[in-house]
Amino acid sequence: MLLLKCCHSLTRCGLVSTQRHKVAPAVVSCALRLCSSSSTEDLGLSQRTNWKHILAGLLAGTGAVLACGLHHHKAEQADVRVSTCPVFSHDEVTKHRTLEDGVWVTYKGSVYDITEFVAMHPGGNKILLAAGGALEPFWALYAVHNQEHVLEILSQYKVGELSEEDQKKQRVAEQTDPFASDPERHPVLHVNTHKPFNGEPPPEILSDSYITPSTFFFKRNHLPVPQVDPASYRLQVEGLPGGVLTLSLEDLKTKFPKHTITAALQCAGNRRRDMNKVKVVQGLNWGIAAIGNAKWSGARLRDVLLAAGFGPDVAQWARHVHFEGLDKDVTGTAYGSSIPLSKAVGEEGDVLLAYEMNDEEIPRDHGFPVRVVVPGVVGARNVKWLGRIVVSAEESDSHWQQRDYKGFSPGADWDHVDFKSSPAIQELPIQSAITVPADGAVIDRSDETLTVMGYAWSGGGREVVRVDVSLDGGKTWQVAELRSGEKGQAPEPPPPPGRAWAWKLWEITAPLPPEAQELEITCKAVDSSYNVQPDTVPPIWNLRGLLSNAWHRVKVRVTDD
Amino acid sequence: MLLLKCCHSLTRCGLVSTQRHKVAPAVVSCALRLCSSSSTEDLGLSQRTNWKHILAGLLAGTGAVLACGLHHHKAEQADVRVSTCPVFSHDEVTKHRTLEDGVWVTYKGSVYDITEFVAMHPGGNKILLAAGGALEPFWALYAVHNQEHVLEILSQYKVGELSEEDQKKQRVAEQTDPFASDPERHPVLHVNTHKPFNGEPPPEILSDSYITPSTFFFKRNHLPVPQVDPASYRLQVEGLPGGVLTLSLEDLKTKFPKHTITAALQCAGNRRRDMNKVKVVQGLNWGIAAIGNAKWSGARLRDVLLAAGFGPDVAQWARHVHFEGLDKDVTGTAYGSSIPLSKAVGEEGDVLLAYEMNDEEIPRDHGFPVRVVVPGVVGARNVKWLGRIVVSAEESDSHWQQRDYKGFSPGADWDHVDFKSSPAIQELPIQSAITVPADGAVIDRSDETLTVMGYAWSGGGREVVRVDVSLDGGKTWQVAELRSGEKGQAPEPPPPPGRAWAWKLWEITAPLPPEAQELEITCKAVDSSYNVQPDTVPPIWNLRGLLSNAWHRVKVRVTDD
Repeated sequence: MLLLKCCHSLTRCGLVSTQRHKVAPAVVSCALRLCSSSSTEDLGLSQRTNWKHILAGLLAGTGAVLACGLHHHKAEQADVRVSTCPVFSHDEVTKHRTLEDGVWVTYKGSVYDITEFVAMHPGGNKILLAAGGALEPFWALYAVHNQEHVLEILSQYKVGELSEEDQKKQRVAEQTDPFASDPERHPVLHVNTHKPFNGEPPPEILSDSYITPSTFFFKRNHLPVPQVDPASYRLQVEGLPGGVLTLSLEDLKTKFPKHTITAALQCAGNRRRDMNKVKVVQGLNWGIAAIGNAKWSGARLRDVLLAAGFGPDVAQWARHVHFEGLDKDVTGTAYGSSIPLSKAVGEEGDVLLAYEMNDEEIPRDHGFPVRVVVPGVVGARNVKWLGRIVVSAEESDSHWQQRDYKGFSPGADWDHVDFKSSPAIQELPIQSAITVPADGAVIDRSDETLTVMGYAWSGGGREVVRVDVSLDGGKTWQVAELRSGEKGQAPEPPPPPGRAWAWKLWEITAPLPPEAQELEITCKAVDSSYNVQPDTVPPIWNLRGLLSNAWHRVKVRVTDD
Repeated sequence: MLLLKCCHSLTRCGLVSTQRHKVAPAVVSCALRLCSSSSTEDLGLSQRTNWKHILAGLLAGTGAVLACGLHHHKAEQADVRVSTCPVFSHDEVTKHRTLEDGVWVTYKGSVYDITEFVAMHPGGNKILLAAGGALEPFWALYAVHNQEHVLEILSQYKVGELSEEDQKKQRVAEQTDPFASDPERHPVLHVNTHKPFNGEPPPEILSDSYITPSTFFFKRNHLPVPQVDPASYRLQVEGLPGGVLTLSLEDLKTKFPKHTITAALQCAGNRRRDMNKVKVVQGLNWGIAAIGNAKWSGARLRDVLLAAGFGPDVAQWARHVHFEGLDKDVTGTAYGSSIPLSKAVGEEGDVLLAYEMNDEEIPRDHGFPVRVVVPGVVGARNVKWLGRIVVSAEESDSHWQQRDYKGFSPGADWDHVDFKSSPAIQELPIQSAITVPADGAVIDRSDETLTVMGYAWSGGGREVVRVDVSLDGGKTWQVAELRSGEKGQAPEPPPPPGRAWAWKLWEITAPLPPEAQELEITCKAVDSSYNVQPDTVPPIWNLRGLLSNAWHRVKVRVTDD
């Protein structure tokens, strides 16, 4: 299998594409396949160093490798020489995500085979998260890479350039597949469904930065991502005495003050996997990373509603504000939901019509050009690709408001569930999870201490005030250190009471309990209303697998190796 | 002991005081003691009917019994004849609280021995809650008693009248005991401490009425109850640009609109007993009834602050509003605490300077003449006998704000607790408890069903949306019926989002599991933010025994008798 993949790639690119003095084992093995009858299986992957020597002999004197690397380096210095490098498709790059298949990455249009570098990477195995995709989002996250000598190291591994082929394919496919125009996603995301796209990052990425980069922010789409032309985009505000107010993107940006908040968004189904382990539920099998913390900027919904005619008269009868997305199903029904009027117009509600995420225009997967950000409230009400706002006496009658995203007793089943009996989820309960170490990780006893990291957040603007961590499954507890900002930087100023929209990251380094063979690491958070997480999953289990916020538990093994 | 008590009473009152055709066994036994050498123990309490016949013979012809009863009845019809009835002290009445000691009650200044009536009471044993004290608060609660024939039944049991003696004693004691002027409390309250007074009602009373009568509302005093003359009462409002605003009670009632809310108040230590069972904590050993739900009326704090000069300028620097009571310790330090400014001045905060509780002036134990009601917030911030309000940039530095009423990790002990590390408790977390049946109750299997009742409430205006009840210790759950009003009456209108200050009562009638010998009944509530109660006590245990909101559990025995 390994050889088939590899040789297919070689067939299309030609052996020349692999000719450089640092060479990936997959390529080496292919080269060997061409030159001899011994398979990679016979050689064994652990003999990588030997292969390098073998291949160095085989390829001696071609000079092609250095030419390709140098060429790229010079191109960055405004060199106009035409590329002599091979061209790879995106598909080909994504096939190289393991040491066995070779580890390929892209950066500014070039393709690099960094298989050999993995063991030398100062950040350890984390480099594999980038395997098969672009380095840019990781380097944006880990700014230490933004140095000249890092580029120099990288340039040594260049194997070719990226083709334009995928974009052409996409344009053809658009005519048949409603999801064909969906944006590219980073291959590191764990995909729950491709169409619509639902994916979450590896948990350990979450605790690496207080602000989650958009690329790694979980993506939860109900429908195809609409293609919106920002120039012709119009937002309709309806239900107010002045009639319909129509706003362009430019109007939103220029006619209303720009307001910025840092807010975590969490899917109601985050940590559903824990519920599935108890008894199967309906919904995407999210792990613990259907949550992210971003900086959002835009016009205040309050300001827009006031401009559209909201006032005391309207407050007499209005109770809800509906949001409708530009994403539509096959029947033409748009995604929709609503929030209580008090949240929408309250001075301290901080609801935004956001046009920026992390200081850039909102990426397509997150609602370009405008999404509602309802801080403290379940992701499902933070409607993306916002097309319409309606002030109303009634709650939205959308499927997602009335027959989804509600909590039920563990006793309710699909034959006996009355969706009218439960309120639509708005504010979410207190939540926390362990991002490091991963479940099943192996800890070296000689380390003597163990560092545990994670996130904690509560809905409704309730600040996380404490996270307790246990190494013995909940028998004894230690208090973790909380962080409201990037590591080593000044924390964000404390929020006013009831407006703590952002999450907190936490960390604790504790002595490894002597003799322990296995640890059950557990965390639980407390918010400013002193709400706590429940101990176990079964009593909060519900048929939709929502609101999964029991203590998070991971088991690790301690070895003496 | 029985005879000693009884004969002491007889010595003071004379035999004539017991002469009526319905006679209490204790009195009978005393009469017998005087007339014969046989003790009550020899006669046995079960022979009460025989005693009546015996005593009827002994007392035949005196006519005194009927005269006393009739006299009282006529006195109610404006009869001016001087009483011929014996006079009892309050102390004597409180000694009669059991069938063994006789069951005495008072009503409108008269004393009744209702021992014999207990078995005939349509409401069953609940009548014993009134033993040794006044009937009025119970009759106010159970309005079925407000009928002429009930008074007629009662009149038959009259044994005398209440003395003025206790009031005199109290006036003498006042000069030495700072608590001597504390008000009388109903004897049904379970007393945690007498000085200061801290008491809670029997749990089953809580679920009998949606509005908790003031008499039965838990009393949580930190210091002696101050004696406040409403005519000279003054409230100082300080820290605002206009200088000190001084308001009389009349000012509060006439210069500001009267606002009414129904709100539950809960002590931070409610259900501390459950924590004491895990490991001893510091604090009053409250059961599950340090909570009550009342109707509060008064001026809005917001309105008073606006009148005192609060405005946008103040909002620039002010962050907290302090409250100081008129209750003072021996050093002259008043009880004090503070709440966030946003809660105090927010239009939806509903903070009251209340001068009425349940449509009457606030009883002394609850803060006469004015207390702050901060709905959704821990009892400790609802300062009673309010004397001073201060708008400030800082939190109150009161002991009760800084070094008490804070939550900690289970790992914190008194040697290693840093009170600065935790925020002062404000909003309380989701809570519920079972009021009926009581722990240890015996259920008759032939009943076939079991009715479970209780209360549920959450802080911060978060509405209770569901209560789950389990009869098997949490393995399976059923959904209870919620009630927001008195039984059989229309419920209160639903509160606006985030302003659900009142509790909900709940009830469920479920089939008794066949074969079960013992049931572990468990309840847990869910609020509108889908916060839930934790499963068990140990992981939320803390050295002060606060915030005890794990699932409530009671065990009952099922018998085949």
